[in-house]
Amino acid sequence: MKTCLDCLPCFVRQILDAGRLISEDPAVHEEILRESLQDLANENWNNTPPVIAQRLHKKLKTKTGINDLYRDQKKAHNELALHLLPKLRADVSTSDDPLTSAAHFAIAGNIIDLGAKNGLSENEVLSAVEHASEEPLEGDLDAFRTAVENAESILYLGDNAGEIVFDRLLIEQLGPERVTLAVRGAPILNDALEEDARLAGLHDLVPIIGNGNDVPGTDLEQCNDKFRALFNSADLVISKGQGNFETLNENPRQIFFLFKVKCPMVANASGQPLGTHVLMEKAKQ
Amino acid sequence: MKTCLDCLPCFVRQILDAGRLISEDPAVHEEILRESLQDLANENWNNTPPVIAQRLHKKLKTKTGINDLYRDQKKAHNELALHLLPKLRADVSTSDDPLTSAAHFAIAGNIIDLGAKNGLSENEVLSAVEHASEEPLEGDLDAFRTAVENAESILYLGDNAGEIVFDRLLIEQLGPERVTLAVRGAPILNDALEEDARLAGLHDLVPIIGNGNDVPGTDLEQCNDKFRALFNSADLVISKGQGNFETLNENPRQIFFLFKVKCPMVANASGQPLGTHVLMEKAKQ
Repeated sequence: MKTCLDCLPCFVRQILDAGRLISEDPAVHEEILRESLQDLANENWNNTPPVIAQRLHKKLKTKTGINDLYRDQKKAHNELALHLLPKLRADVSTSDDPLTSAAHFAIAGNIIDLGAKNGLSENEVLSAVEHASEEPLEGDLDAFRTAVENAESILYLGDNAGEIVFDRLLIEQLGPERVTLAVRGAPILNDALEEDARLAGLHDLVPIIGNGNDVPGTDLEQCNDKFRALFNSADLVISKGQGNFETLNENPRQIFFLFKVKCPMVANASGQPLGTHVLMEKAKQ
Repeated sequence: MKTCLDCLPCFVRQILDAGRLISEDPAVHEEILRESLQDLANENWNNTPPVIAQRLHKKLKTKTGINDLYRDQKKAHNELALHLLPKLRADVSTSDDPLTSAAHFAIAGNIIDLGAKNGLSENEVLSAVEHASEEPLEGDLDAFRTAVENAESILYLGDNAGEIVFDRLLIEQLGPERVTLAVRGAPILNDALEEDARLAGLHDLVPIIGNGNDVPGTDLEQCNDKFRALFNSADLVISKGQGNFETLNENPRQIFFLFKVKCPMVANASGQPLGTHVLMEKAKQ
């Protein structure tokens, strides 16, 4: 999806949040904000929102020399999620429908998104996970089940740190022997990198590949050849999170999108209300 | 209060809302937004938020030749409020404490603020009024009562159209013979003008003066001499709404601010949580 004009206020907020992580000096925040407003005024708004976010953050990285601004928050979210994992795995294994149960937790974990919202509290994460199975799961669950049963190869597109631990539950149910996990190729916001997937123990289960870039989504033009080959050849692509949806929702291949609707623009593009847990099939075009 | 960096995303949203009222053409919205981002990048952020809003809207007025963009919405809000007035007046007159009851309604009416939020529905207004007296009124009610009892002259600073009808209930309780009502001197957002105050029948009760400018607040430097003289000489100044608070909260004179807290920055400056109905005395400094 293209960037909507309504995304502009959100970019300004996101960059202000990043500025406050970089420094405690209001003069630094102001300088970053003034430059970002200028850049946004001149930006090509036909880009997807994640590509514009990438550009804004890239400039911050160059300016400050800080490459992984969200490292501490990612670490905290990974640890919180790992702490919850045994209980959730037990819940999945005793569920009447472990695949659905695991999908519920994976989507609930998508709340851990520091691009969509600043100041996410531990309690918000705990509450999202606790109430995960009570949330209605909007979408194409039967089609998903059938696609999973029939796929010999599955490419799973990860989204955020912390959330990647919950993805593990779903990957365990999918049958790890068929799955390859893709993560971002370089730090951006709190998006999961290979180190986050390894921390979740996923390297013992599945091959992990970095997609070669730092878009907080999946911008195929910027992805490396290995990723693109897998994306084109996999029987099934499972895409987690808003950023992957925003960059792939117009792609011609069949994809199952799993995410929590966290902004009005994605609500509009997906046809699902704000807050909804979505499991959506986009059929091959 | 100075503009906070957190006000910047909100300005961008406000201008996008205005652009959508001006035209249905996305190219026009984009042009307005690009120019406003540029202007905001170069703005003096030591100004109060209402003064920056004034400048952004002034540029829109010049560009489009549309002077009163919110005319239709103001008319609709005035009519809705006038429809509610007889019932609310009866509630006030049978109340054990008519002054507090009228203050409640006047503050509830402050929800009609199209600067703080776009797309306000009739139901939101009705619900705010219906539940007005259940809302806790944070502040200095006893000091307010005493100040009202002792004042020979009261300057009442109006805020928005529609809301001005609810202000009438409070002005009736204050004793109209002592009150002068000030409104904006020219159209800005949905702020009340003399025509709105007349529609509420206030011209039969009190003298009405325009303050001589189109700041969505009270920027004394831009106010006319008549307004400033009244502001300085009145025994009591009652200030309605966030915009008046944002422009006068650092003024040295005693003022009673009545408003609903509608943004985190005003929550911070007032020390009251988002959503609170505030009746706050600022003592003479």
